[in-house]
This record gives sequence, structure tokens and C-alpha cells, in this order.
Amino acid sequence: MGKTESGSNRLYENQLLTFSDYANLYQKELLDNVLPFWLRFSKDEKHGGYYTALSREGCVYDSDKFMWLQGREVWCFSYMYNHVEQKPEWLELARHGAAFMLANGRDAAGNWYFSLTAEGKPLVQPYNIFSDCFAAMGFASLDKADPGKGYGQVAIDTFKNILERKDNWKGVYNKNYPGTRSLKSFSLPMILCNLSLEMEHLLGKEKVNELVPEVIHEVMDRFYRPELGIILENIQENGELSDTFEGRLVNPGHGIEAMWFIMDLGKRFNNQALIEKAVEITLAILEYGWDTEYGGIFYFLDRKGYPPLQLEWDQKLWWVHVEALVALSKGFAFTRDPRCMQWFEKVHNYTWKHFRDPAYGEWFGYLNRRGEVLLNLKGGKWKGAFHVPRALYQVWSTFSALDKAST
Amino acid sequence: MGKTESGSNRLYENQLLTFSDYANLYQKELLDNVLPFWLRFSKDEKHGGYYTALSREGCVYDSDKFMWLQGREVWCFSYMYNHVEQKPEWLELARHGAAFMLANGRDAAGNWYFSLTAEGKPLVQPYNIFSDCFAAMGFASLDKADPGKGYGQVAIDTFKNILERKDNWKGVYNKNYPGTRSLKSFSLPMILCNLSLEMEHLLGKEKVNELVPEVIHEVMDRFYRPELGIILENIQENGELSDTFEGRLVNPGHGIEAMWFIMDLGKRFNNQALIEKAVEITLAILEYGWDTEYGGIFYFLDRKGYPPLQLEWDQKLWWVHVEALVALSKGFAFTRDPRCMQWFEKVHNYTWKHFRDPAYGEWFGYLNRRGEVLLNLKGGKWKGAFHVPRALYQVWSTFSALDKAST
Repeated sequence: MGKTESGSNRLYENQLLTFSDYANLYQKELLDNVLPFWLRFSKDEKHGGYYTALSREGCVYDSDKFMWLQGREVWCFSYMYNHVEQKPEWLELARHGAAFMLANGRDAAGNWYFSLTAEGKPLVQPYNIFSDCFAAMGFASLDKADPGKGYGQVAIDTFKNILERKDNWKGVYNKNYPGTRSLKSFSLPMILCNLSLEMEHLLGKEKVNELVPEVIHEVMDRFYRPELGIILENIQENGELSDTFEGRLVNPGHGIEAMWFIMDLGKRFNNQALIEKAVEITLAILEYGWDTEYGGIFYFLDRKGYPPLQLEWDQKLWWVHVEALVALSKGFAFTRDPRCMQWFEKVHNYTWKHFRDPAYGEWFGYLNRRGEVLLNLKGGKWKGAFHVPRALYQVWSTFSALDKAST
Repeated sequence: MGKTESGSNRLYENQLLTFSDYANLYQKELLDNVLPFWLRFSKDEKHGGYYTALSREGCVYDSDKFMWLQGREVWCFSYMYNHVEQKPEWLELARHGAAFMLANGRDAAGNWYFSLTAEGKPLVQPYNIFSDCFAAMGFASLDKADPGKGYGQVAIDTFKNILERKDNWKGVYNKNYPGTRSLKSFSLPMILCNLSLEMEHLLGKEKVNELVPEVIHEVMDRFYRPELGIILENIQENGELSDTFEGRLVNPGHGIEAMWFIMDLGKRFNNQALIEKAVEITLAILEYGWDTEYGGIFYFLDRKGYPPLQLEWDQKLWWVHVEALVALSKGFAFTRDPRCMQWFEKVHNYTWKHFRDPAYGEWFGYLNRRGEVLLNLKGGKWKGAFHVPRALYQVWSTFSALDKAST
């Protein structure tokens, strides 16, 4: 840590906490307040799987099973088992969700449904390929924790299916008239950046080497627009901008999350220039998406400053902020750029003040523009055991490594 | 006007404005500030049809043509031609939109697309039957203004198609797995209440007499829940409540709007008890949906008080408030219930203060919970020349009739 004052374990004099303070804070929050919340409240003992619609206190207020979140919770607890500690109750909870998914989650073609009833009956069809992405991620992680039980094959089959469906994944549920306006969405290449690494033990190094460069190219050379300094959610098939509601849409959190996936790929491919580019983009998106009036990062913006379709555009969402913390901590660790640490502290202060719930564990998900709690749920259709624990782990491990490097 | 003070043209002493003051205010706003905005800014001279994505000042910020709003603007200007004054420019603007719709709006089966490009190419498929509802409404109204030109037949054909599709209108775009959870939605019976009367000159009195009682029954005996005092957006096929996100959803504005359709049907069927029931429900929904902290009517609520899926739940939307003004003015005119007038003044004060734009005409559409402008558009994907002008006309004509009755 050449740039830190000798012995202080800080980057600069007015840095609020030392790296080890941050590491301890994120570790403690993960282990004491977040994982226990899901362990205690989300398991459906009767039907299997997880409840995710949990109130502030952890009560189940809706019993539907959303497949994004089933797959993500399998991932979360097997990941923690793999990376933090081999706690039997974590592995057991991951297996519990996987069993429910295996018994009920797929249609005859192997596509994962979007949602099921509490009992496991299919409720909403597999119109959404991200159910498959998070299933693959969950089963791949569980295979690491508990190899030889067939979980890996489920992940591989699902991944193959994603690649087959990837250019027309909405299939019959696509409401766009063919040929009039074909836009490409950022979501899938972005998730493939992360999923490829999550599945490398199953896909093999060569397959990852073969797959990933094109995905990086999509993200960094097509959806990232140097002329605007930001990442767009939708572009034309030919790579040009689209001056439409979809084509003007900016989701700052999405771009920032993708940048830490890219930083991880930069490490994996030993490409420091890629990491540095991802750091620059992270900082540019933060400048662009930060609400200078009330603090926090906007959920949606229009690149031309027009009114976006999303009425929730000015809200502050948990995942946007915790993913920014991951990107900034990694960005700092990988480049030692002091702007990353300055931004980290700014986002950290906002996030811990507004999203954390000191009373009941886990974090709030949805704040209004002013940072007031808009919905006091801890989980729902879109929020489960995923972004908060993953980010807490990532920041903890990143600062912990920094702390070791500096002493 | 037995209950008013003689000669005062007020219901009660502290009533802010006389009925004729209100009539004049709503008339003037309609004729001076709202219709001129759409006349001036919405017409697409090049491709035909209307632009509806208009900024605060009236600039076009997006050129897509959404069929709900094309049909509604045809309706608006032909309705004003039929009811206010036979202004040639109003009829011409209505015909202008109808020509674009006829040339581009339908697929081979006669279903109306959801949206088109500015040039008229189909963009989003006919997954949404409300495009058809507003097309039928527009063409029926234009047929009154300009009979014998075939507009009436388009309305009739569209209406027949709506009735054929009504039990499975999402068709191939339905993402629900068949049989697991079949819910009925309030939207279609609600709109049919209004559409039947709008089309009576084409359908004939007998057809309306035959169709409407079942629709009233759906609204008043199935979606209205006396045990809760409110109207729900979705119920089970068998009429029971559904304890799901969809089944707990309350949209106060939707229920209130439906109640003035029911009041009109009460007049049409000479059923004063139905009118009185609709007035009671209007008042109950207002009590339920009113934001006692910041004023205004919430957009969405959950009947059990759980977090709704809609992140925009606490926002204040223009159509909710102007439809409440119509329901309350009609409720008062039809029953002389003083609670209607008290609520009218409360909603009037909120609405005129927060939604009206004194600088550029038309009204803002989207406010945050505090009543601050959230999106400063005058039109977009969902807001066009419809709710504001219709409501201004309805309140004007209702108070104008009251004023005449009281002098």
C-alpha cells in the first residue's frame, strides 16, 4: 500500500475508517444481520423452496415462489458455504431450495418457469431467461459445495439452453412486431460476464476463453458509449443508438454492476487495461447517476434528459447502491485510484444510513428520492437473498485482502 | 335546489365558489388552456395521426404512436364537436387521427395494434384489448360528428371483436400458466360500462339493454366488495377474493372512475338506487384512498396493507384526481348529497393547485407523494388528450345544469 500513510491503514488522512474497519463492518453485517434473516424466515418447511415476500420483521406476506429468487438463494447459501465457512445449515438451506426447484421448476423443454405457487405449481411461463440464468448460477455454486450429486449437470444443461435461446429468448411472448424495431438488451451480455466465471469449474477454462471475449466486446464496445460516457440498456442490432424510450434508457446501477463483473474478468484474463477502463466507466456513471440534491443514485434516467417511462425513475434501490459499493471497492483494490475510495465512502455513508435496518436485520429495498423508506419489505417479487449478502461478502473480502496487503 | 340558500347558488354557506363559478372555471380551462394545447402541438402533419409524447411546453420528445391515445384523441375532438360546438378544426383533427388509424392501425384479423412508429409501421402487437376499446369509442364518436362515412361500421366491427376476445383477450401473449390461477380483471367490465353508452346510437337501445345489466352486476356485485367497502382490481373466476399480489391490489382512481360510469348508467336505466350505491362507494373509496398526510389520492394500495408490487403506489396521478372530480360532481347533481360537494371542493383544491400548469396549458400528469411534479411531461405513452378534457367538460356541464336548475 505505497500510497497509504505508513501504519495508518488508510488511503488518506480524512478517510473515515481503516480498511480493516470496513472489512470487519461488512463481515459482521453479513454474518450477524443478513444471512440469519434469510435462514430464519425464508425457508418453507411445508412445501420446500423459499418464501421471499418477507415483511420488515420477517413475516411472510405473500407465498408465491419467484424463480429468480429461488435460484439466487440457492446460489447465496452455497456460495457462502464455499467462501466463508462450511456451515452445515447453509448447505442444507441451499439443498432445500434446489430440491424444490428440481421437482417443480422446469417445463418439458427444460426452461425455468418465471414463478410457481407455494406448493410448486407453475404460475407464470418461462418468458424470462433470467430465471434460467439464476438457476444455472445457483446449481453451479451448489455443485461446488456438494459435488457429484448431479447439480452441475443441471447448471450445464441450463447454460446450454440459455445460449440456444439467447437471440430470441422471449419466444412466443415477444410482443414486438417482427422487423420494425429490433433492439438488443444489455441484460443478457451483462449477466453472461458474471455467469461464465461462476460456471468456469463446469464449463472449463477453454470454453470460458472462447465465450467471454465476445461478451466483453458487447458490453465495452457496444453498450458502453464513449460519446456519452455511460452504458445504455438498449441499442439497435447494428450497434447504433435508438432515439426511442427504450433506446434512451439509462439504468446507472445496471451499468455499475456490470463494471465489477468486467473487473473480475480483467483479473481472470490478466488485463489491467480492461480493469482501468471499467473503473473509469464506473466513476463516470456515478457522476452521471448521482442525485446531487438528495444523495443516492437514480434508478432510471433518459440519456436525452426526457421523461422516462418508468415512474419509479427517481427512487433509490438497494441493489443499485450495494453493487456500486462492490464496484468501488474492487476498483480501488485493483487500481488504487483514490477517486474510487472517495466515492466508496460517499456511497457507503448514504447506503448504510438509509437502507440498513438496525432493528430487524436485512436491508430495506426501496426508498423514495429523499431517501425515506417507500416500502418497508425485506423481500418481495424482486428482492431476495442475493444483492445485499453478495455485496457485503465482496466488500468484506476485498478490504480484507487490502488490509493484509498493507500490513 | 331545495337545500341551497335561496339565491346564493351555493349548497352551504362556506362553499368556496358558486355552481356557476365552477361551471365557468371548468369551461374556460377546457376551451382556453387544454383543447388548444392538443390542437396546436399533437397533430403530425407529415405522417398523420397524433404525437402524444409532448413536453411541458408542447415539444415532441418521442414520436411513437400509441393506439390507446390515438383512439382517445379521435374521441376527444369529435366529442367536443358533438357536445360543445361544431368547430371545423375540431372535426378536422378527429378525422386526421381516424385516417391514420384506418390506414395503419389493425392487423389482418382486425385487432388494433398497441403501438405504431410515427410513420405507421406496426411496432407492438395487439396484446392489449384496450387499444380496441378506445378505437371503438373514437370511431363511434366520430360517426356521430360525421355520419355516413363508414366510421360507425369500424366501431361496430371493433366492438364485436372485443366481445369475442373478452374472455381471453391476451391470447398468445398471456404469460400465465393455464389453470393454476385464473383471475378476472376489473378493467374490461369497467370500460364496457362506459363504451356501451358511448356506442348506443350504433348498438341500439335493445342491445344496450341486453348487454349492460351483466356488466353492472360484475362491477357492483363482484368487484365491489361490501365487506371491504372498496373495489378490487382482480378477483377469482368464482368471485372469491384472491390473497395474491394481483388479488390484493386496489386502484382507487379506477374504482372511482367506474362509479361515474355507473351513475350514468343509473340515469340511463332510471335506477336511483344504483346511483345512490355508486355515490356511497365513491365516498368510501375516497376515504380509503386519500393520503391524509400530504393530500391527494394514492395510485395503488394493497387491501391487506402489504407492500404492493407497484413502486409508484404513492404517486398522485392526474387521471385519478380528475375522474374523482367527475364522480363527485355527478354524485352531487344526482343525489344532492352534501358529502359529495365537500369532497368535490377538497379534491378540486388539491387538483387545481398541483396538476394545473398555468404557464403552458394542459396539466401535469405525474406528481410524487408530496404533490411535487415528478415528470413534467404533458403527454406520453399513457397520457394524451383524454382524461383532462373529458373531466373538464363533464364537470362544466354538470355544474352548468345544476346552476340552471337552481335559478
